[in-house]
Amino acid sequence: MRATLWAAVTAACLFTASALAASRETRIPDGAMATAATLRERALQSDLAWRITESLTTEVGPRLAGSEADARAVAWAEAKFRELGFDRVWKEPVTFPKWERRSERAEVLGSAAQPLAIAALGGSPGGTVEAEIVRFADLASLEAAPDGSLAGRIAFVDYRMARAKDGAGYGQGSRLRSRGPSAAIRKGAAGFLMRSAGTDSHRFPHTGITRFDEGLTPIPSAALAAPDADQLARLLARGPVRVRMALDCGWTGQATSYNVIGEIRGRSRPDEVVLIGGHLDSWDQGTGAIDDAAGVAITMAAGKLIGEMSRRERPARSIRVVAFANEEQGLWGGKAYAAAHEQALTRHQIAAESDFGAGRVYAFSTSAPEHAKAAEKRIAEALAPLGIAHAPGTGGPGPDISPFAEKGLAWARLAQDGTDYFDYHHTADDTLDKIDPRALAQNLAAYAVFAYLAASAEGDFGSAPKLASDEAGAK
Amino acid sequence: MRATLWAAVTAACLFTASALAASRETRIPDGAMATAATLRERALQSDLAWRITESLTTEVGPRLAGSEADARAVAWAEAKFRELGFDRVWKEPVTFPKWERRSERAEVLGSAAQPLAIAALGGSPGGTVEAEIVRFADLASLEAAPDGSLAGRIAFVDYRMARAKDGAGYGQGSRLRSRGPSAAIRKGAAGFLMRSAGTDSHRFPHTGITRFDEGLTPIPSAALAAPDADQLARLLARGPVRVRMALDCGWTGQATSYNVIGEIRGRSRPDEVVLIGGHLDSWDQGTGAIDDAAGVAITMAAGKLIGEMSRRERPARSIRVVAFANEEQGLWGGKAYAAAHEQALTRHQIAAESDFGAGRVYAFSTSAPEHAKAAEKRIAEALAPLGIAHAPGTGGPGPDISPFAEKGLAWARLAQDGTDYFDYHHTADDTLDKIDPRALAQNLAAYAVFAYLAASAEGDFGSAPKLASDEAGAK
Repeated sequence: MRATLWAAVTAACLFTASALAASRETRIPDGAMATAATLRERALQSDLAWRITESLTTEVGPRLAGSEADARAVAWAEAKFRELGFDRVWKEPVTFPKWERRSERAEVLGSAAQPLAIAALGGSPGGTVEAEIVRFADLASLEAAPDGSLAGRIAFVDYRMARAKDGAGYGQGSRLRSRGPSAAIRKGAAGFLMRSAGTDSHRFPHTGITRFDEGLTPIPSAALAAPDADQLARLLARGPVRVRMALDCGWTGQATSYNVIGEIRGRSRPDEVVLIGGHLDSWDQGTGAIDDAAGVAITMAAGKLIGEMSRRERPARSIRVVAFANEEQGLWGGKAYAAAHEQALTRHQIAAESDFGAGRVYAFSTSAPEHAKAAEKRIAEALAPLGIAHAPGTGGPGPDISPFAEKGLAWARLAQDGTDYFDYHHTADDTLDKIDPRALAQNLAAYAVFAYLAASAEGDFGSAPKLASDEAGAK
Repeated sequence: MRATLWAAVTAACLFTASALAASRETRIPDGAMATAATLRERALQSDLAWRITESLTTEVGPRLAGSEADARAVAWAEAKFRELGFDRVWKEPVTFPKWERRSERAEVLGSAAQPLAIAALGGSPGGTVEAEIVRFADLASLEAAPDGSLAGRIAFVDYRMARAKDGAGYGQGSRLRSRGPSAAIRKGAAGFLMRSAGTDSHRFPHTGITRFDEGLTPIPSAALAAPDADQLARLLARGPVRVRMALDCGWTGQATSYNVIGEIRGRSRPDEVVLIGGHLDSWDQGTGAIDDAAGVAITMAAGKLIGEMSRRERPARSIRVVAFANEEQGLWGGKAYAAAHEQALTRHQIAAESDFGAGRVYAFSTSAPEHAKAAEKRIAEALAPLGIAHAPGTGGPGPDISPFAEKGLAWARLAQDGTDYFDYHHTADDTLDKIDPRALAQNLAAYAVFAYLAASAEGDFGSAPKLASDEAGAK
């Protein structure tokens, strides 16, 4: 092929690509915008998300993945989807190792003898350790300690997580929780204590999953409530401190729970879905109100409000609401969903998970590629009256969405104000009274509007299997 | 005696009484007012009350009356008084029945199975009760229930205490705690649960002493955290609820603790004292920071600041600081003090206890009779720059002062802002972080000024043994 011919072919190809891009520009129909405005106002007046949150947290309460209560939560979710009139309700199995907390206790020994409020980290083994405490300001300091320097001691990492609207401080806090125990083991420690990854100053330790690196022998690992971390630091400033920590907890085999799914059937493209959801499991100490009954309730209620529309008003695509299993211990439900539905990836228009409490939504963004950016902007316009800013290019997918997003699923983010989220997160204090019903209604309106418009769009939001090269590029 | 002579005698007597009253008018010397102003500013800059609070709550922690930690607290107080340079330090025994909490647990049974956060009430017997719950809105409703109607059931009184700056809501709250269990027993109940006498919405149950009327067989009695009371009420709205409550606690014989006393010697009338203090014991769950390490620290620090004055500036009378034993379980220290010092009542110029947290002092009043009202007003003038209003005729003596006040001791009240006090009171969350060091310094300034001026007064504040007729009149 000669150069001139090559140039002509290239030009033709470019023209074709450009024309194709123009033809696949995703649009939100004007009629859908008008209907979304009505839906938004109806949602703001609705207490349905509140009632669903109240129902789950009251009737089931705490629901640690794999527990008897988790099974009740699954039954609750199925029944609730049916009660709300979802067109299809089903569940998909999710199997994972089961961890349970039986008891935990810590106390300062000696002349300042007193109890300390702790919570075993999820995944910690049981065991009793009585040893001297060595304090570190942060994970890096622990990692910098000489090998073997903690032999027979308990590492205490006193890192103070920062409060932030977008929860940015949790990055460091949860990193310490995940990596701290293994780092402590490498230095020879017999136990691990950390200041809770939280922003409150109440005597509630914050639990959360930890992991132990391959080849290491796990050690009892727990979080101290903030006032107890303060106390330990003050005692250490006076001299050596010995602590006894006794955890009764651990892994107890495999368990199977379920992603529980309800669907509102789309008018013209029912096999294509907009996926919204939250996670059904919670930690075992609170009733999992903000984490994540609220997310399940907001998205169930959004589905229900869309399901109530007249047949003519219903969106083209189906609204699929997923109450994910076992998010807390490693996104088990999200991974299982991605594995089970990988072949149907492109039939997933876009997905959004609500799992950041019950604060107001303040920002909206998506992973939309160029051809869907105008549609994203239109959705943002419909969300603006709720006080939600369009923040293109920010954020990422919710936790249970992320395994599928890694495979190419388009995602949206309705960012919640998480200023207070880490005051309650993973504590016994995560209960219904922490939720403002008006903020919950605003969330409901946001999810209803988003799901309705995405499901009504002409065109897609970019869901497509990632090529090996994409993945390589992403890494 | 004829009528005219009688009239002449009466007139003479009246004249004499009036002249006497004028001559015993209590005065605050101008020089003392000037010195008090300097003391006030010095106290506002001092972190001593904070450091003492930190020391007691950190080094001793929780100190339930009669416990090993209580004995450590007594040793701490003696050592602290000496360290602060008090002129005399001693302790006086206080004997009382000893109660202890070992464990407590409650759970909803059946299809909504879940744990409930409870705390045994002080004085409750141990025991396990598994029974249906009967809810009452308040104590009066429980008292109005038909006899025997609670046979084999658990009474749950869901009274919601009101928030108030002066803590007025606690009257009803603590009345329910004291009288509820006996009322429940009279109706046949096997167990007693109450919504905590508190104003927070966190999962901290509020403990506190209860009593059982003579002739009744005590039943396990506990307080629910507010969110758990909410939860129980919501479950009861759905149908019958069975709960298992298991308390391991109870009376374990007699114990002896101590009122620990430090004195700053007066310049010219050292045998007369102005008494200030707080109570040394605490409940066993928190570190007793606001209840009542703060009160002990404020008054110890006030004594210390007065003790630091030059010999020339020292007040005429001594400043006696008392760290009372076992206030929580029935004013044992206050009663013992009154009994031990009854003969010296008139040598007690006036007394004030700090036992309402660590909020700012906002009002000042005393029991001063007419001849000391001008002096009270002068003290109020010296307190005014601290934002403290003169509120004559309001309030009453602090708890440990009250047994002695009943015998005729003059008292002062430095009313603290208790708006948040019952968020933490008698919970595990009563820890140092709840205290604002600046508010504590304001308290220190208030106590230092009050004690200094009262000890410098020319004349008395009305301490005098009450006559039988006074007592009859008071009743």
